[in-house]
Amino acid sequence: MHVVVNAAMSADGKLSTREREQIAISGPDDFERVDSLRADSDAVMVGVGTVLADDPSLTVDSATRIEARTDQGKPPQPARIVADSSLRTPLDARILDDAAETILLVSDAVADSRVSALEDDGVTVVTAGDGRVDLRAAFAELEAMGLDQVMVEGGGELIFSLFEADLLDELSVFVGSVVIGGRDAPTLADGDGFVADFSRLELRTVERLDDGVLLRYDVQ
Amino acid sequence: MHVVVNAAMSADGKLSTREREQIAISGPDDFERVDSLRADSDAVMVGVGTVLADDPSLTVDSATRIEARTDQGKPPQPARIVADSSLRTPLDARILDDAAETILLVSDAVADSRVSALEDDGVTVVTAGDGRVDLRAAFAELEAMGLDQVMVEGGGELIFSLFEADLLDELSVFVGSVVIGGRDAPTLADGDGFVADFSRLELRTVERLDDGVLLRYDVQ
Ligand SMILES: NC(=O)c1ccc[n+]([C@@H]2O[C@H](COP(=O)([O-])OP(=O)(O)OC[C@H]3O[C@@H](n4cnc5c(N)ncnc54)[C@H](OP(=O)(O)O)[C@@H]3O)[C@@H](O)[C@H]2O)c1
Ligand SMILES: NC(=O)c1ccc[n+]([C@@H]2O[C@H](COP(=O)([O-])OP(=O)(O)OC[C@H]3O[C@@H](n4cnc5c(N)ncnc54)[C@H](OP(=O)(O)O)[C@@H]3O)[C@@H](O)[C@H]2O)c1
Repeated sequence: MHVVVNAAMSADGKLSTREREQIAISGPDDFERVDSLRADSDAVMVGVGTVLADDPSLTVDSATRIEARTDQGKPPQPARIVADSSLRTPLDARILDDAAETILLVSDAVADSRVSALEDDGVTVVTAGDGRVDLRAAFAELEAMGLDQVMVEGGGELIFSLFEADLLDELSVFVGSVVIGGRDAPTLADGDGFVADFSRLELRTVERLDDGVLLRYDVQ
Repeated sequence: MHVVVNAAMSADGKLSTREREQIAISGPDDFERVDSLRADSDAVMVGVGTVLADDPSLTVDSATRIEARTDQGKPPQPARIVADSSLRTPLDARILDDAAETILLVSDAVADSRVSALEDDGVTVVTAGDGRVDLRAAFAELEAMGLDQVMVEGGGELIFSLFEADLLDELSVFVGSVVIGGRDAPTLADGDGFVADFSRLELRTVERLDDGVLLRYDVQ
């Protein structure tokens, strides 16, 4: 499985304000790029923190790209994956609508009855981990389900865990020309953080885009 | 007065680990660039958090650059400035050695007797602000003292306050190819953070350097 993180951060590394209010960090060219990346993916993933903060749909927008997917024998939309240990995703979240398949990664803290109810509603549930989603085990299961290209859109808690579990192949980050600031604002990689054995990257391309710059790295 | 921030951050916006342990983010080419920037400055500034964490000397390293300064009739080293509201700088801090002039910005919470003792030791003390250094008032005084080019090296608390007070002209940030992570690790701009009226930048140049990239912005 090939796993790519794609996110937009301010020049000071923030994904949003301390109030977890999303602000426009990138522009129309980056929006097109992200839409195209989604269309090339088998699944698009976020943490439940992002679902609660932004209620994203994570779907491909362009009709041409949707058509191209179906022409290739793929489902019109990539699947949506949420890492959600204790099922905090609200039942009316956009991510649970029928625009695309939805896969919830949960921990074994979630009651079987709740899993069955979701499965009856057409949601795929992958159970892995004790209290918190075990991302390595869950990703092995996703791979076994036939997912090949996975795009992770955030947020910083999930991204850090994926670096820590050594599950990432690429990082694309759009750096916008704005300063958000805030010691409590979410950053590209939060979690506990490394104090040694940092994740090393290799800078592959640097490209000006909108009013900012897109940095593409391979994860070593 | 022309005020430039120069800092090195990880690809996820961190200045150091959550333990405030500095790690090598940049390399030899960036080191040379920073040394040259220091040599071109009348003063180099940090917050007392950086003094306590790193005990930096903030001096120019290259003998050639030091000589060039004296040839131009300047002091061999730029002055060093610390924003230090309540005089937390340790008496044995490198920044107080006699390698260069030192200017401490303090608040009026500091007793006159402590200010006089420092002044007797040859330290310049600028008092501005109620409990915390008022950066606008302090910078007006620095300008009146004849300082023209000021370089700010960090950390994130000071940098955010300078953005908030609208005192910055330029931001240069080296983005290293490493992920540090950590919701409590210092970032390029900490403080309370903006929730509206964000600081806007204009991306001037993008340059690959060492294993990372140097982004230079004008502050709008
Ligand atoms: N600018 C961008 O590109 C962008 C993109 C996405 C998000 N964002 C912003 O990011 C913010 C949300 O980020 P966030 O960091 O708070 O949330 P997040 O990373 O989206 O979700 C974190 C949550 O995922 C769950 N999770 C399950 N297993 C996990 C594991 N193994 N490791 C880590 N998390 C796991 C945890 O909740 P449980 O313990 O309940 O499972 C955790 O609290 C929002 O403000 C949003 O606007 C911005
Ligand atoms: N990678 C890099 O380029 C780089 C550069 C520098 C530092 N660093 C790292 O940054 C970390 C230190 O950063 P930091 O953010 O903790 O400290 P900092 O910004 O260096 O200093 C913050 C302190 O400055 C004092 N201060 C006085 N007036 C202020 C004002 N108006 N606004 C804000 N602060 C004011 C405050 O202490 P008082 O209230 O006591 O005055 C405040 O706690 C260290 O881990 C260091 O290694 C990295």
